[in-house]
Amino acid sequence: MSIAFDPDRLWNSLEEMARIGATPQGGVKRLALSPEDGQARALLRDWAQAAGCTVTVDRLGSMYCTYAGTDAKAAPVAVGSHLDSVPTGGKYDGPYGVLLGLEILRALHQAGRRTRAPITVVNWTNEEGSRFSPAMSASGGAMGVLDEAKVLAAPDNFDASITYADALAAIGWAGDADPARARDFAAYFEAHIEQGPILEREGIPIGIVTHCIGVEQWDVVVTGTDGHVGYPMAGRRDALAAASELVLALERIAIETGGMATATRITLAPDARGNIPAMVRLAANIRHPDADGNARMEAAFRAAMADLATRRGVEVQIIRVGGYPRVPFAAPLLDALRRGAQGAQLKHRDMPGPIPQDALHVGIVVPSALMFIPCHGGVSHHPSESISRAWCAAGLAAMGAAVIEAAGGLA
Amino acid sequence: MSIAFDPDRLWNSLEEMARIGATPQGGVKRLALSPEDGQARALLRDWAQAAGCTVTVDRLGSMYCTYAGTDAKAAPVAVGSHLDSVPTGGKYDGPYGVLLGLEILRALHQAGRRTRAPITVVNWTNEEGSRFSPAMSASGGAMGVLDEAKVLAAPDNFDASITYADALAAIGWAGDADPARARDFAAYFEAHIEQGPILEREGIPIGIVTHCIGVEQWDVVVTGTDGHVGYPMAGRRDALAAASELVLALERIAIETGGMATATRITLAPDARGNIPAMVRLAANIRHPDADGNARMEAAFRAAMADLATRRGVEVQIIRVGGYPRVPFAAPLLDALRRGAQGAQLKHRDMPGPIPQDALHVGIVVPSALMFIPCHGGVSHHPSESISRAWCAAGLAAMGAAVIEAAGGLA
Repeated sequence: MSIAFDPDRLWNSLEEMARIGATPQGGVKRLALSPEDGQARALLRDWAQAAGCTVTVDRLGSMYCTYAGTDAKAAPVAVGSHLDSVPTGGKYDGPYGVLLGLEILRALHQAGRRTRAPITVVNWTNEEGSRFSPAMSASGGAMGVLDEAKVLAAPDNFDASITYADALAAIGWAGDADPARARDFAAYFEAHIEQGPILEREGIPIGIVTHCIGVEQWDVVVTGTDGHVGYPMAGRRDALAAASELVLALERIAIETGGMATATRITLAPDARGNIPAMVRLAANIRHPDADGNARMEAAFRAAMADLATRRGVEVQIIRVGGYPRVPFAAPLLDALRRGAQGAQLKHRDMPGPIPQDALHVGIVVPSALMFIPCHGGVSHHPSESISRAWCAAGLAAMGAAVIEAAGGLA
Repeated sequence: MSIAFDPDRLWNSLEEMARIGATPQGGVKRLALSPEDGQARALLRDWAQAAGCTVTVDRLGSMYCTYAGTDAKAAPVAVGSHLDSVPTGGKYDGPYGVLLGLEILRALHQAGRRTRAPITVVNWTNEEGSRFSPAMSASGGAMGVLDEAKVLAAPDNFDASITYADALAAIGWAGDADPARARDFAAYFEAHIEQGPILEREGIPIGIVTHCIGVEQWDVVVTGTDGHVGYPMAGRRDALAAASELVLALERIAIETGGMATATRITLAPDARGNIPAMVRLAANIRHPDADGNARMEAAFRAAMADLATRRGVEVQIIRVGGYPRVPFAAPLLDALRRGAQGAQLKHRDMPGPIPQDALHVGIVVPSALMFIPCHGGVSHHPSESISRAWCAAGLAAMGAAVIEAAGGLA
């Protein structure tokens, strides 16, 4: 005997949620703790209460919508993601995971059934990090990976006079629950669009994410010598030409080692039409599926730096500005997801998670699992981010069964 | 019979002028039409009047300090440069040419001698272009290369609410002379520091600049596809990686063809740690001593662009944003400079002028000559810009004799 999840209800709820902060381009702008985020929270709360849930909010604003189980002493099984978006976001990055969780509760409620353990749908605050740095700060604060007071004190990246705490109070979503209670979850599941092209290319609707890969964020500073653009080529120490070699070295090393490496930002000094750039600061992001992959990439990059310094007479320095550890997910939960996919006759494959999600933070403390569905063209963080109804339904079927199983099954 | 120029007086005047707008780093900040520019003008006026000159000011603010000749009908021989500086300027870029001219007049005045033709020392407004675009706008307006009304309407690059005309009026230096009268100069001489390393390296104190080389200013726009930095390397169309190849192509092409090419600015969209750059706008400057050099460099660059577009699937486009024509200088005046150097037993060499100066604009209309003296390390537009007393004196001796000769000699 099983529960009938309603993929159309999930689809319609995704569409309805996407009206909050909808942009003319067809996407969503729903920055963390903005008025739109407040509207999205209210909608989730109303939906959850209508599905027989109790809703609590912690001091970082994360929402917990709990559908009680039959065992009052059992720790909850959680399903979560986020409702905030990047400034040029789409409809699915975040809301898919939250509303998939909601659909599980709705189906249980509609059927009048309960699992043994409670099921809690979590909406983590500020996953994207667009408005408040760092990303995934509420899940990090909940798990003790980040300091709660620092999360609350983070300035708005667009208006430094406002803090996370100010914005949370302004929209009326500062709760009193202790974020650390989330560490007591029996298990945590997160469904997310892949934000990459692999599943769609391979025609596989379910990605079982074995681990979030480790990420290194660097600033690479190249120092040369300034000069007028009329200065002869011989004797120049052009920091931008040198940095260009490093951008290409990052790319080459990623391809050669099977990782990913990207130069994402670049600032110059001087930054003027008449001047040879003397100093370049390059933001670099490296990540590799293998446990020792980032270290191998760094070693190769440092060799390229040394070669460059010798050939061009420039100084190059790596400044570590952030990153995420490699986090493996819980084998029993991944198995439950595989069984969920098999039960629904859905193809699935194991894959690394190249992009940090809240599951990375939660997975450091709580047995966790992350599952991907495809998105068209791998496009994400863009108004044209899209999924098919079939993929939407596939993820619900696979994870819905896994969550019911992890919560002890139907009572 | 000749005139004794006083290189110490020139040196001391350079030092005194450098106190106006002096910076803690030992350089000068004297932006065009700033209060400091006003003070510098007043000092030049006072010095010129004390040397028996009449001072007129044109509608663009350029100053003309004229020491009368014996032939009332003879067109003046002009010697000029500029007193404005870049924000992080030195003591010599500009003032050397103006005050060298002044020293010629002072020496004549002190000796009670006159040339046949009048000699006019010119201080052109806004040579640097730091405050008002484009650079060398007053000499361009005087020569009809630029439209006078547009020069006056140029907004302050640091405060768009102020125009060139506003700033000129604010410091009280708007004159009523017609700038076009400068087109009637019999000849124009300009002395300038080289702003490059060649003369110092070769131990030659006098550079005879045969022509100002042509300059092309481009924006190169590279369009790829955005994506998350967790996207696999295969299938990316990373605009920054593509642009990095173009930065290196510019450098390679310049070296191979004997020209100069520099990428000076770069802007990205998106410009965020989590995103693969989808659009890059690169400011590029190319210049070549040969008449067909820029065209050859452009052809080579377009080939690199086409190759890149094929290999990386990006779009690349050149937008012309400015530039200067190739301007040859007047052979008789260059000969006069060579004779001046030889007369003072100074080594000299011919060389192209890789950096536009006011002489470029004037040389389009008036027979003109540009002369370089060395500067230490080729450093310019920097507080540490410096020259030796010997180089200072060498330039004065060579050009002083040439100007006297061009003005018909001592009467």
